[in-house]
Amino acid sequence: MPDKAKVLLDPHFRKMTEIFSAADLERLHDTGEVVWGRDDPMPPEEARRALAEATAVVCSQWRYGPLPDAPDLRAVVSVSGAFPNDLDYQACWARGIRVLSAAPAFGRQVAEMALGLALASCREIAAGDAAMRSGEEQWLHAGNANTFMLYDAPVGFIGFGALARSLRPLLVPFDVRIKVYDPWLGDGFLRRQGVEPSSLPELLETSRFVFVLAAPSSENQALLSRELLERVRPDAVVVLVSRAHVVDFDALTELVLAGRFRAAVDVFPDEPLAPDHPIRGARGAVLSAHRAGSVREGMWDIGQMVVDDLEAIVAGLPPRRLLAAEPELVGRVVSGHGLKR
Amino acid sequence: MPDKAKVLLDPHFRKMTEIFSAADLERLHDTGEVVWGRDDPMPPEEARRALAEATAVVCSQWRYGPLPDAPDLRAVVSVSGAFPNDLDYQACWARGIRVLSAAPAFGRQVAEMALGLALASCREIAAGDAAMRSGEEQWLHAGNANTFMLYDAPVGFIGFGALARSLRPLLVPFDVRIKVYDPWLGDGFLRRQGVEPSSLPELLETSRFVFVLAAPSSENQALLSRELLERVRPDAVVVLVSRAHVVDFDALTELVLAGRFRAAVDVFPDEPLAPDHPIRGARGAVLSAHRAGSVREGMWDIGQMVVDDLEAIVAGLPPRRLLAAEPELVGRVVSGHGLKR
Amino acid sequence: MPDKAKVLLDPHFRKMTEIFSAADLERLHDTGEVVWGRDDPMPPEEARRALAEATAVVCSQWRYGPLPDAPDLRAVVSVSGAFPNDLDYQACWARGIRVLSAAPAFGRQVAEMALGLALASCREIAAGDAAMRSGEEQWLHAGNANTFMLYDAPVGFIGFGALARSLRPLLVPFDVRIKVYDPWLGDGFLRRQGVEPSSLPELLETSRFVFVLAAPSSENQALLSRELLERVRPDAVVVLVSRAHVVDFDALTELVLAGRFRAAVDVFPDEPLAPDHPIRGARGAVLSAHRAGSVREGMWDIGQMVVDDLEAIVAGLPPRRLLAAEPELVGRVVSGHGLKR
Amino acid sequence: MPDKAKVLLDPHFRKMTEIFSAADLERLHDTGEVVWGRDDPMPPEEARRALAEATAVVCSQWRYGPLPDAPDLRAVVSVSGAFPNDLDYQACWARGIRVLSAAPAFGRQVAEMALGLALASCREIAAGDAAMRSGEEQWLHAGNANTFMLYDAPVGFIGFGALARSLRPLLVPFDVRIKVYDPWLGDGFLRRQGVEPSSLPELLETSRFVFVLAAPSSENQALLSRELLERVRPDAVVVLVSRAHVVDFDALTELVLAGRFRAAVDVFPDEPLAPDHPIRGARGAVLSAHRAGSVREGMWDIGQMVVDDLEAIVAGLPPRRLLAAEPELVGRVVSGHGLKR
Repeated sequence: MPDKAKVLLDPHFRKMTEIFSAADLERLHDTGEVVWGRDDPMPPEEARRALAEATAVVCSQWRYGPLPDAPDLRAVVSVSGAFPNDLDYQACWARGIRVLSAAPAFGRQVAEMALGLALASCREIAAGDAAMRSGEEQWLHAGNANTFMLYDAPVGFIGFGALARSLRPLLVPFDVRIKVYDPWLGDGFLRRQGVEPSSLPELLETSRFVFVLAAPSSENQALLSRELLERVRPDAVVVLVSRAHVVDFDALTELVLAGRFRAAVDVFPDEPLAPDHPIRGARGAVLSAHRAGSVREGMWDIGQMVVDDLEAIVAGLPPRRLLAAEPELVGRVVSGHGLKR
Repeated sequence: MPDKAKVLLDPHFRKMTEIFSAADLERLHDTGEVVWGRDDPMPPEEARRALAEATAVVCSQWRYGPLPDAPDLRAVVSVSGAFPNDLDYQACWARGIRVLSAAPAFGRQVAEMALGLALASCREIAAGDAAMRSGEEQWLHAGNANTFMLYDAPVGFIGFGALARSLRPLLVPFDVRIKVYDPWLGDGFLRRQGVEPSSLPELLETSRFVFVLAAPSSENQALLSRELLERVRPDAVVVLVSRAHVVDFDALTELVLAGRFRAAVDVFPDEPLAPDHPIRGARGAVLSAHRAGSVREGMWDIGQMVVDDLEAIVAGLPPRRLLAAEPELVGRVVSGHGLKR
Repeated sequence: MPDKAKVLLDPHFRKMTEIFSAADLERLHDTGEVVWGRDDPMPPEEARRALAEATAVVCSQWRYGPLPDAPDLRAVVSVSGAFPNDLDYQACWARGIRVLSAAPAFGRQVAEMALGLALASCREIAAGDAAMRSGEEQWLHAGNANTFMLYDAPVGFIGFGALARSLRPLLVPFDVRIKVYDPWLGDGFLRRQGVEPSSLPELLETSRFVFVLAAPSSENQALLSRELLERVRPDAVVVLVSRAHVVDFDALTELVLAGRFRAAVDVFPDEPLAPDHPIRGARGAVLSAHRAGSVREGMWDIGQMVVDDLEAIVAGLPPRRLLAAEPELVGRVVSGHGLKR
Repeated sequence: MPDKAKVLLDPHFRKMTEIFSAADLERLHDTGEVVWGRDDPMPPEEARRALAEATAVVCSQWRYGPLPDAPDLRAVVSVSGAFPNDLDYQACWARGIRVLSAAPAFGRQVAEMALGLALASCREIAAGDAAMRSGEEQWLHAGNANTFMLYDAPVGFIGFGALARSLRPLLVPFDVRIKVYDPWLGDGFLRRQGVEPSSLPELLETSRFVFVLAAPSSENQALLSRELLERVRPDAVVVLVSRAHVVDFDALTELVLAGRFRAAVDVFPDEPLAPDHPIRGARGAVLSAHRAGSVREGMWDIGQMVVDDLEAIVAGLPPRRLLAAEPELVGRVVSGHGLKR
């Protein structure tokens, strides 16, 4: 290790103040010498030079060239929720270089939004507010003709990663029973987490609240196919907060428009969503413009976790807050953010 | 006690099927002979005759005449959330007649709605849905310019009765610290419940989420006066779900319209709310037409609790599910439902 | 109410410093004028005179004469875990006089001990410690030939009063499923508390940990008869912490001596237990000399609760910390402390 | 990967039936071809041959020669609580071979015992049982002259690994505040786990219950030095359940014998402990013959976790139940079991 740790900090597309609180930025500077640390992308030439001495690279994608040019490198830290493409992972494992993503920083904010969307749907909070504004509201029981409660409801999670592990504790006091479909996790692990492993069809047929929480992978594109969506209970709500990738979105739209079930949707196949996309008019939907995972204070969790783990790595300790890439999965998770830029 | 218990069942303004599931109705018939048991009000003459042999009266108000005419009476059970007026409570205590209200049956449904409203406000779920429909939505960070999280937030409860005790467990996983103002409860009791006693001004000045949960009493009309409301943090949301009685509603409306703080409001001074009431246009408000406590499945909690407690009373045991009237408080709680009928 | 509340404080057999911390004593003096307040019993003549002006009487038994001599009385507070005998309860109800017992103050200390005894039994902590001292210990697996874990075990509670409600949360993290037998509580109430109603035979046949938590009543003497005890699982432990009254103690002793099941026993039919009582030699027993409910700091809970509730009563509010006597049950609970004095 | 996974199963010093339930053994055979699978150690020649085709090696130590001879190897699984010595970890990282230990399988059983020992100490359960047998018991308050409660107590954890993470939830319902000293974990991580980071002296000076939970490392031998032990509160209990390695055991013994504080001890520097070791006579101690982590049913957790993770590895998924070796720590954790064999 060099005398002093050097952190190549090139967070673009994120902004410095978006992810670092003042306190965390100060801690970061105490951890090592910060190179770059600006909002605009680091010029490639300068980046390559800095890489030669870098202990860690904090970035959103890997665009710094071959790893042999980084002899001191011990960590590659992504400030997005995904792992960098174009990185030589094999070389990282061989050299003990940690590759980390900020996915866990989204756990709490997305879980909170997922619960909020679920309640907004079953208790018709958004529709009820709109009705109050248009003067068409129904009072008391009349306004509750089609509402239902989360308490005691059968719940299904599709995916049991960081989002699901943040969401589960929020649902515990509602006395729900949670079934989980996650082909990457064994039954024994899931049971010890207090949830019940399930097949996907069984989950869809029995759950009144279906939370789609799976990270996009090369294996789960349109996993929720039209055929499977047709198995959803007619009195259910599907809450989609991870990625539209996981769902046949056309089928979802049609079924919700047809009143087959309800949906609460934060992510879309194309973002911004086309102005004339039919789901915009669906009465059975609660819609949100990909806002579950970018709350200001939530974003500071990214910076806090990044600095916490950089401190650990510089001290020769394993990182404990960000998500570490694993050989078995790294090629199977799909990157990308949904929003066209 | 007579050979067989007789239950005078006169639930009007509620409807039989609104409060009793088929299973609970069957249990009720197993408990004793049901007299009347229809949706329309029992004719007074018939009621008085039935009273002479009644073990219990299930009603929404007391309109059955003097208690001496009810020699076998052991319980008066209100299916509303309030205790009957015009009942001789002194005589009830003296004779060991239990007076019970269905207030606890509203705990879960109102708590769930209170949380849903709070999240709809801080995460701008209702406004976000409206924007998606009008095509004016802002995506990702731009759409989160003014949102905030419940996690780790300072929370204040005004009142710590049935609603608050149902709401507290829902907030625990958000790692919040809860201050409580309730002049009817001692500090020692509150601390053992895991909350922190507080004065009202301190609560308002420090809480980011203020939940108004106090039952209306002869002592708390407009408790949240204009002066006190002006102490609310500018970045706070006031969630009003018990009764508008507790708040200076004009002041609340003006302050929310002025952008001083946010509000989520389920109860109003006059219901239905006037079509031109200015709060209908408040951008900082989430509005709901008194729908927190009348969800269909939630209403069946009333019937379940009523039958559970009737079973207990007929068996010579104390009721454990409904709220028992207490000598110290019975005259101080205000009845009434807000909605003009 | 008189100008200033007067509290007749005559806690004998308890001692003042045993139940009141200095801080609580100071609070008590702020609440009203304290009359007597000594460890030895108040002389009868003096007591009767004081009663004439007393707002509240804090005592261990009622020995102050007829209630009409106490025109200002609003509360009778027992510092024992039981309600006073020889009190005219009918008159108390009629006049709205609260009768309170300190039973809830024992909840936490007894629950803690019940868990400690259960673990000492299943993990053989007491026997293991004795073996280490005699040099006969077995190490590692050899020492665990007959131990078992509380995690995931089926648990039964006999009685679901204050002790049980304190014990349940301590067991939740062990992922146990709790069956409850309590003839004074309905199934609906029990289910909402997160436990499963059960018949007594089923509970005994299925539970690996049987906690006897029922307060002694006129109805449950030797409830756990020899016949029922013979249904206990051979691999179970019976934890007896409420009163020996509830159990056929001779049968329990014989069955434990015969190795039929284990027991952890804190209460005995005659206390002190006869020096030659055979249970003293039972290898399958963990024995404790009625020490679950008299920990020094736990005893201060009594004083704290007493003062909290006196404050409430003087302020015209209902008490919320001590246990209020109820018409349906007061004659059915048996008083007495087990220990001959 | 070969056509069918081959599992070299050589668990000695553990026994097959000690760690595998019948159901898990069956699952294991479904996962792949089991080679060896006996209680006695696999003969070296045979082991080397099997290694050439092994997908996974399940063992207690690495004694199978160089990794290049194992071209298909994807996991080395230790059935002890430690990682194998004499394994080329660098080669494992480079080739993506997972190295796993069964440490997490001890979490629940040791946590349960740690709580049991703590309660046995503070509530004097072991001493009280001994007194009942010798006829020297003190009843009620007299028997509680020196007891205290876990409720509300300040608690300190030394180490926050698998044991601590299992113990923490067991303590939550006791309303304790937990300080943690763990130099391998950052403050941010600890706070998010609901504990408070602390220096070691501060922890010792303020905690009434000190749980020693740290795995032995090359850095923490006699971490609890005499000087530090002298800072322990006089009214505290030190619960030692991880390894005696972490403590100056002579100092601990002397201080407990001198009555400076209490201790509950499950692990000793030399096991079996010398028959004349002075701690055997310490009145302030609860002693256990290294029995916290070898309960029969707890041991089956090892087998379950091993099979769960072998299933994952054979399916090309990351293991999620056992502890994965990490480059930063693997050389720093000390192996060994305490007990001379």
